[in-house]
Amino acid sequence: MTEMLLNCDLGEHYGSWTMGPDELVMPFIDQANIACGFHAGDPLTMSNTLALAKEHAVTIGAHPAYPDLVGFGRRSMNMAAAELTASLLYQISALDGMAACNGQRLSYVKPHGALYNDMMRDTAIRATIMKTIGSYHQPLALMLQATPHADEHKKEADEYGINVLFEAFADRCYDNDGALLARSKPGAVHNREKMLAQVAQIMDSGTITTVDGKLLQLRVDTLCVHGDNAEGVAAIEAIRALVNGE
Amino acid sequence: MTEMLLNCDLGEHYGSWTMGPDELVMPFIDQANIACGFHAGDPLTMSNTLALAKEHAVTIGAHPAYPDLVGFGRRSMNMAAAELTASLLYQISALDGMAACNGQRLSYVKPHGALYNDMMRDTAIRATIMKTIGSYHQPLALMLQATPHADEHKKEADEYGINVLFEAFADRCYDNDGALLARSKPGAVHNREKMLAQVAQIMDSGTITTVDGKLLQLRVDTLCVHGDNAEGVAAIEAIRALVNGE
Amino acid sequence: MTEMLLNCDLGEHYGSWTMGPDELVMPFIDQANIACGFHAGDPLTMSNTLALAKEHAVTIGAHPAYPDLVGFGRRSMNMAAAELTASLLYQISALDGMAACNGQRLSYVKPHGALYNDMMRDTAIRATIMKTIGSYHQPLALMLQATPHADEHKKEADEYGINVLFEAFADRCYDNDGALLARSKPGAVHNREKMLAQVAQIMDSGTITTVDGKLLQLRVDTLCVHGDNAEGVAAIEAIRALVNGE
Amino acid sequence: MTEMLLNCDLGEHYGSWTMGPDELVMPFIDQANIACGFHAGDPLTMSNTLALAKEHAVTIGAHPAYPDLVGFGRRSMNMAAAELTASLLYQISALDGMAACNGQRLSYVKPHGALYNDMMRDTAIRATIMKTIGSYHQPLALMLQATPHADEHKKEADEYGINVLFEAFADRCYDNDGALLARSKPGAVHNREKMLAQVAQIMDSGTITTVDGKLLQLRVDTLCVHGDNAEGVAAIEAIRALVNGE
Repeated sequence: MTEMLLNCDLGEHYGSWTMGPDELVMPFIDQANIACGFHAGDPLTMSNTLALAKEHAVTIGAHPAYPDLVGFGRRSMNMAAAELTASLLYQISALDGMAACNGQRLSYVKPHGALYNDMMRDTAIRATIMKTIGSYHQPLALMLQATPHADEHKKEADEYGINVLFEAFADRCYDNDGALLARSKPGAVHNREKMLAQVAQIMDSGTITTVDGKLLQLRVDTLCVHGDNAEGVAAIEAIRALVNGE
Repeated sequence: MTEMLLNCDLGEHYGSWTMGPDELVMPFIDQANIACGFHAGDPLTMSNTLALAKEHAVTIGAHPAYPDLVGFGRRSMNMAAAELTASLLYQISALDGMAACNGQRLSYVKPHGALYNDMMRDTAIRATIMKTIGSYHQPLALMLQATPHADEHKKEADEYGINVLFEAFADRCYDNDGALLARSKPGAVHNREKMLAQVAQIMDSGTITTVDGKLLQLRVDTLCVHGDNAEGVAAIEAIRALVNGE
Repeated sequence: MTEMLLNCDLGEHYGSWTMGPDELVMPFIDQANIACGFHAGDPLTMSNTLALAKEHAVTIGAHPAYPDLVGFGRRSMNMAAAELTASLLYQISALDGMAACNGQRLSYVKPHGALYNDMMRDTAIRATIMKTIGSYHQPLALMLQATPHADEHKKEADEYGINVLFEAFADRCYDNDGALLARSKPGAVHNREKMLAQVAQIMDSGTITTVDGKLLQLRVDTLCVHGDNAEGVAAIEAIRALVNGE
Repeated sequence: MTEMLLNCDLGEHYGSWTMGPDELVMPFIDQANIACGFHAGDPLTMSNTLALAKEHAVTIGAHPAYPDLVGFGRRSMNMAAAELTASLLYQISALDGMAACNGQRLSYVKPHGALYNDMMRDTAIRATIMKTIGSYHQPLALMLQATPHADEHKKEADEYGINVLFEAFADRCYDNDGALLARSKPGAVHNREKMLAQVAQIMDSGTITTVDGKLLQLRVDTLCVHGDNAEGVAAIEAIRALVNGE
C-alpha cells in the first residue's frame, strides 16, 4: 500500500476577514498550501500560518495565484509569460523568505484556482510555471493534478529539472478522461462513504472509478482535502485515520 | 577624503505607469533602493530593475513601504508591530528571492516615504524595523538618515546585530537640528552649485552647514540622489564626477 | 419618550470573504451603514446589501472609509483635504447611484473606523467631511457620535447646510468626558443587562451614566448596534424589543 | 458631410503616476472617456479630469474596466453577469455622482481595454453591458466600435432602450472584416498622411479602405484619438482642423 499524504489550502484569511478553521485542520494534514498575498493571505496571516505549520511539523508549499483579491484568484487572467514568471517568483520568494526567518523550508509550489486550472489545460502556461520553478534558487517541486497525462507532465518537469507531486481529490467524482466532474453535475461531490471508498481504492490499487464505472489508473502522491467548516474538518479526520491505517 | 556612495530610489514604475528614467540613472549610482510592490514596483518591474542593477554592478537594497499604492507610501499608517514586521519581511523576502534567482544578493534595507520618516521620528517603530531586519535569515544593513543622533542609532542597531548605513541628501538644506528644512521653506532645495558645494563639504570635512550657518558634524556613508527627470540625471552625473574626484 | 432608531454597519463582506450575518440583522434595524468598497464591500456585495435593505424597508447610509482593505479602514491616513473630499464623493456616489438603480435613496453618511475617529477628534477633518457632504448634489445627513459637544457639531453642520444624526453606543461604557471607555479598560463593554439599562436610560431621560457614576446629558437620535455573530444578533433583538416598547 | 466628434481616453493617472498630457488634449476633443478607478483614475484624478472637461465644455463618458490596476484593465476576466453588472454600476455611479456635484452630466459609457474587446466579441457580455446601462437611473448611451455589424448592435441596444455611438479609429488600418489589423502586422498603424486621409474618407463617404483595398461602409459617430505624447497631441490637432473643415 502506497504512503499517502494529505494537502490542504490554508492561510486564506485577509486582514480582518477569516476563511476556514486552520487551527483545526493543521493537526491532520502533511502539506500546507499557503496563500501568498495575491488571492488571499496578507503578510501577518502568512506569518501566523507558517508558525502553525511549524508547530505541527507540516511541510509547507507556496500557493501562488493570479493577482485578483476580489475574485479570490478564481478568474483566468491572460498574463504574458514574463509577467507570470515575475508574479510567481515574487509570491514564492515572499513566502520562502518568511519561512526561512522562521527556520522553515519551502518544499513545493501548488498554483491556486484559475492558475491551477490554466496550468492543467494549457501547455504553454504549464511550461512557464515549470520553467519558473526550475529557475528558483532553491529546489522546489510542483504539485499538479493526477491525471492520465501524468507521464507527459513528469517528462515536461524533467526538462526543467523539477520534481512533481500528483494530487487527487478525495471527495470529487472523476469523469472518464480523468478530469473532475463539473460541480454542477449530479454526483460531482461524494458523500462521506463514497469519499472514503475512493481514498481506500486509490491507496489499495492506484485507481479511481469514474462516473461511468470505468477504472482509471492514477499516480497519486497526495490527496487534496478541504477544511472550510466543521463538516470538512470531520471529513479530514476520517481520511487521516484511513490513511494512517487506523 | 571619505569614500562616498550614491544611492537612489528606483523601480518605482507600476504596471503601465512609469516613474523616472531608471536606465539613465543606474550607470551613475552605487546602490539601488528597489521598490517592493507596496507603494510601487510590480513584480515585472522588480525583475527588470534587478537585471538593470546587475548590468551596472550596482548594489541592491530593499525599499519597503506601507501598503498604500494610491498614496505612494507617503502616508503614515498606524500598524501594530507584528503587522509591520510581517509586511517588512514579506517585501524584503520577495525582492531577495527574485534577486537570488538572478544571481544577486540583497545588501540592505531602506524604508520608503512615510515609513522612513516614522522610523527617524519614532523610537518604537525604529526598534521594530531594526529587530525585523535583525531577524532576517541573511545579514542586511539598515540605511537611515545621517543626523546628530547617529551614535544612538548605531547603538540601537548594535543591539539587534545589524549594520547601519547613514545617508545624507545632496540637494537639501538642513536645519540646525540636522533635519531637512521643510520643502515649503525658502532655500529648502539647493541649486546645482550649492548642492555640489554641500557634497564637497561632506566629503572633505564630514560636515554640513545648516540654514543658519551652523556647522554640523555628520557621519555620512552614502548620498541620496534623485533621478526623476533629465535635470535630476544631469545633477547625478555631476555628483558622480565630484565623488570620483574627476 | 424619544423615538430611537437602530443603526448597524453592514455589507462588510469582500469577494469570497464574509463578515457578519447581515440577513439576520437587517430585519431588526432602521438604518444600514453600507460599506462602499474602500475598507470592505465589493460592488456585488453592495448591490446585494442594498437589495436586502430594500426588502426590509431599512433606511440606507454610505459608510465610506480610508482606502485600506487589508487594515479594514481602521488606520488613520493623513490625506490632503482635496484627496479626502474626492475619496468621499467617489464612495458616496458609487453607493448612491447603485441605490438609485434599485429605486432607493441614500439618506446619510457615516464615516467608518479611523475616519470616524479622526472626524470626532480633529476639527479640520470634520470640516472637510461636512463641507464634502454639503457639496453633494443631493441632501445627505452626517451621522456622528453623540457627545457633550453636540451643540458645536450641530452648529458646524449648519454652516455647511447639512443635518446631523447623533448616535450612541448601546453596549459601551462612557468616560466622564462622553468618550467611549477604551476597550482595554475593565468594564468597557456592557453585559446584556447593563446594555439594556443604558438604552432604557437614554430613551427615558436622554442621559448616560459614566464609568464614575457621573450623569451625562446626550442628544441621541440613533443607537449603533453590532451584529457580528449570533450573540450580537440576539442583543439587537432585545434592544429592538425595548425600543419598540415591547 | 457628416458631423464628426472626437473622443479620447483621459484621466488615466493613478496617485503619483501620470499618463498622458490631458491638459493639452482636452481643448481639441468633444468627448472625454474618463477612467473610473478600476484600471486607472484615483478619485482625485477623476475630480480633476471632470473639472478640466467642464472648463473646455467637453462631453463626458464613463470608461469602466475590469478590476485590474496592475494590468491596466487589458486582461480579460471571466466575471459572472451579476458581478460585471455591479462592477459597471459602481464605476459609472462613482463618476456620475462626482460629475453631478460639479454641475456636469454623464452622457455615455465606453468600456475600457479587455472589457471593450470582450463586448465586441461576445454577445452575452455585450448583452450584460447593454442591460446594465439600460438599468441605470439616468439615460446613458453606449459607445462601441463601428463595424459591419452595426445594425445588429443597434437592434440589440434598442431592446435595452439605450442609444449607441459608433466609433472608428483614425490611425488604425482595418482588415476586410472591419476589425482593426493587429498591431503586430505591418501597416497596422497609419502615418499622419494616411490617418488624415482615412478621416477624410470616413467623413466624405462613410467608408474605410481595408488593408486589401476593399471598401467598407461604416456608420461612424465619433473618432477615437490618442494623446499619449507630443506627437499624439499634434495628430489630434490636425484631425481637429480637418473635422472643423479648416
